[in-house]
Amino acid sequence: MEHFSDRLLNAIGRKGSPACVGIDPVHERLPAELRRRVDGPRSALAAIAEYCSIVLDAVADAAAAVKFQSACFERYRDEGVETLYSLIADATDLGLLVILDAKRGDIGLSAEHYAAGVFQPWIDRDELAPRLAVPDAVTINGYLGADGIEPFCAGGRGAFVLVRTSNPGGDAIQQARLESGETVAEHVARVVDQLSRERLGDLGYSDLGAVVGATKRSEIGSLRAIMPKCIFLVPGYGAQGGSAEDVRACFNPDGRGAIITASRSVIFAYERDTEGPWADAIAEAAQRFAQEVGEVAAL
Amino acid sequence: MEHFSDRLLNAIGRKGSPACVGIDPVHERLPAELRRRVDGPRSALAAIAEYCSIVLDAVADAAAAVKFQSACFERYRDEGVETLYSLIADATDLGLLVILDAKRGDIGLSAEHYAAGVFQPWIDRDELAPRLAVPDAVTINGYLGADGIEPFCAGGRGAFVLVRTSNPGGDAIQQARLESGETVAEHVARVVDQLSRERLGDLGYSDLGAVVGATKRSEIGSLRAIMPKCIFLVPGYGAQGGSAEDVRACFNPDGRGAIITASRSVIFAYERDTEGPWADAIAEAAQRFAQEVGEVAAL
Repeated sequence: MEHFSDRLLNAIGRKGSPACVGIDPVHERLPAELRRRVDGPRSALAAIAEYCSIVLDAVADAAAAVKFQSACFERYRDEGVETLYSLIADATDLGLLVILDAKRGDIGLSAEHYAAGVFQPWIDRDELAPRLAVPDAVTINGYLGADGIEPFCAGGRGAFVLVRTSNPGGDAIQQARLESGETVAEHVARVVDQLSRERLGDLGYSDLGAVVGATKRSEIGSLRAIMPKCIFLVPGYGAQGGSAEDVRACFNPDGRGAIITASRSVIFAYERDTEGPWADAIAEAAQRFAQEVGEVAAL
Repeated sequence: MEHFSDRLLNAIGRKGSPACVGIDPVHERLPAELRRRVDGPRSALAAIAEYCSIVLDAVADAAAAVKFQSACFERYRDEGVETLYSLIADATDLGLLVILDAKRGDIGLSAEHYAAGVFQPWIDRDELAPRLAVPDAVTINGYLGADGIEPFCAGGRGAFVLVRTSNPGGDAIQQARLESGETVAEHVARVVDQLSRERLGDLGYSDLGAVVGATKRSEIGSLRAIMPKCIFLVPGYGAQGGSAEDVRACFNPDGRGAIITASRSVIFAYERDTEGPWADAIAEAAQRFAQEVGEVAAL
């Protein structure tokens, strides 16, 4: 299979925008017609599955990729995981690159198990139809070091290591300053940079990328300089407060090197834009978002 | 429900030992009679389920708790998750405390989803029989800060934050030294300590604990001093090289404050001890392990 970074950058090129829509469904915020059918966890999961399927259709023209928040599905235990992989297949069929935001992190053999769980095709309960669709990349937590990272990069798949997260609470650890003068986040970035350079695709980028929050504008330039070969996966755009200006520094001078994620501001757009069908509100929000970040990348 | 730390410490008291057996099954190392039935991932999962059920019976007398390595089950996708929770029910029925080693870590709402996924009872496919058994505690990654930690401590359940892992690769990040002179691991320990003090049980310990590897002997004393109210979950005993001497400093002067985990040295004991039934070899290894760490805690 083609190198992950080439597949991602080519998808961004085809769509003309580094836009990734985050699929973070919660049953409380579903459109009223779907929410009405919810009377327990199983019907909530069914409503979420129907909703996500329509969301994928609505964003497929505008977005280069989608990022599934694994937690939203794992809360429905094994049945949620089954639904998640069914939706990953739908997204793949629509030509979308798929990032699984699972933030896994373990050591050695356990990391290999997680990588197999995420990236190996599984077989259906009736043992007849193989379920071949798997994510193209996964997010991982690098606190356990290189032996927790390397098993996730193989066979044309990619991984994004959490370097600087978009939440306020992340500062307590990620902003602590080392003797060297660098922050912990910058130190993690150096570990990621070193691993990233061994695994470049034809377009010069690594299959090992970094998660860098859009809300951390003042730190992005430094992280970009430390990890020149890494594609940044940038959450925090839109609902969390990150703007087009904030994410400009995530891109290299070649206009590449970042994929920007908006989640709630797109997938719940019908909460603000209440005229017309809810799927149309999502499609329009996805188009606006893709245009905004497409213009940033082109500058 | 009773406070997690009281339940854990009372279980340790009843068994006379702070021994936790790690359930990290891989089909390649199953006893020959089970391995012979494996001809694909689904039969591998079935063999693992049967094996784990027998392991739980074999260790239930000696161990206070078991720790399931979630990755070993998640590699079999949704069906692996279903098997995992079925085994958690078996362990609970045997009177064992259950720790799920899932190393989850996300922010705010996503952390709440993960906590719900781990700790909320689920319902059977036929919607008749609720599956009530859930783990008593879970391991989590604290790199994202307090808002990624707090959702996991509630309702009599507990969490162990990764502070110092037992693998060699962990040093690159966890041993980096801050301006303050402390290591990153010690800094994370201070964050955990602060959160831990708000949530003490009757025996004076918090429901928020810390993962501290047995292989990091020289650092354990410092971490014990920083987090006096935290129970340490200590992996790395046995197969990874940690000894009874190594873990002594994990305990407070009251003989409490740690639960020691051995995984491969117990559950694959039949690889060394080939005489007699394989379940007996596991039971004997669990008893020896429990006695060893029971003596350490009593000193």
